[in-house]
Amino acid sequence: MSSYPSSIEQVIQWFSRLPGIGYKSAERMVMKVLDMTPSDVDSFASALVEMKRAVRHCSLCNGIADKNICSVCSDSSRDDAQLCVVEASRDMIALERAGGYRGKYCVLGGKLSPLNGIGPEELGFDRMQDLVRARRVSEVIIATGSDVEGEATAVYASRLLKPLGIKVTRIAYGVPVGSSLDFADEATLMRALEGRREY
Amino acid sequence: MSSYPSSIEQVIQWFSRLPGIGYKSAERMVMKVLDMTPSDVDSFASALVEMKRAVRHCSLCNGIADKNICSVCSDSSRDDAQLCVVEASRDMIALERAGGYRGKYCVLGGKLSPLNGIGPEELGFDRMQDLVRARRVSEVIIATGSDVEGEATAVYASRLLKPLGIKVTRIAYGVPVGSSLDFADEATLMRALEGRREY
Repeated sequence: MSSYPSSIEQVIQWFSRLPGIGYKSAERMVMKVLDMTPSDVDSFASALVEMKRAVRHCSLCNGIADKNICSVCSDSSRDDAQLCVVEASRDMIALERAGGYRGKYCVLGGKLSPLNGIGPEELGFDRMQDLVRARRVSEVIIATGSDVEGEATAVYASRLLKPLGIKVTRIAYGVPVGSSLDFADEATLMRALEGRREY
Repeated sequence: MSSYPSSIEQVIQWFSRLPGIGYKSAERMVMKVLDMTPSDVDSFASALVEMKRAVRHCSLCNGIADKNICSVCSDSSRDDAQLCVVEASRDMIALERAGGYRGKYCVLGGKLSPLNGIGPEELGFDRMQDLVRARRVSEVIIATGSDVEGEATAVYASRLLKPLGIKVTRIAYGVPVGSSLDFADEATLMRALEGRREY
């Protein structure tokens, strides 16, 4: 079977390792890269290497940063009294995009998932407790996902925080804004009812 | 709005330029790249640059190659008397994967599409005629797509070839193998009926 020259086959293999990309998509991506100018391909390649070189984890919140301390942690105008606990840097960025939250973050680096060998030691619970103790945090907002592992992680975190005598809250799960009730699944509607608030 | 460090944002922009990749997918791809080892990222980046450097168009068929003449054109065991005309290198690779065809190819480099400014001059019709004349081709198989532009390209090519007095054929369009009739759309069924063959 004749197929692509090996240099192309290799890039297809690299693209195929990315999430959601199968062989066919990788093929189309390679064709697009071949259509770029050589200097664009050079810039693309150096951007990859430069990103990997520059990006590290913030030594305070464990979020993604290109300095030792990320822009949120180093922002003195933000409120040290609120700490939002998320699974991953992506969640932190999503909350930052939404705007409105002026506290700080702690990135756990995943969620409890015993079947995948991820126990409490693999996640940043120690970091979370250290931050709470060091900063006189008055409220910890737990913003892990609503799947089983995310819920388990939230419960575990709340139990660790209870002895510290601070307010622990969980973000609301319910019907998304802009969506109609009949599109929401049953679990979401149950959560929306449970989480109802008085006018 | 706080967001990713600029080195990450840049790679997200590069990935977003690839076909089928939006911002969210690019974000997930970047996270995957950040999880790779630095040496893997280096290899990924050099594979891109190396591919762009190595890949050229075959000087005979215009297909993708890493040498001046591609592996199909330089294969002396293949039949010079058959020439298969396709739109793009991808189509040539797909036919090669299917196996069975032992002739050679001519890659047009696109399809007629006046609305996008692609006329006959932009495509490899001269190359096609040159190959036919130089090689004593006895049959040209036109394997452009079945969409309107692909059909127009096929008709145009067949009119150019008719004066040369050779057999010109079009690949069959019909019900895909393994699929049932009731899943096929009406246009496909019409083509399957039109293209019926006697036992």
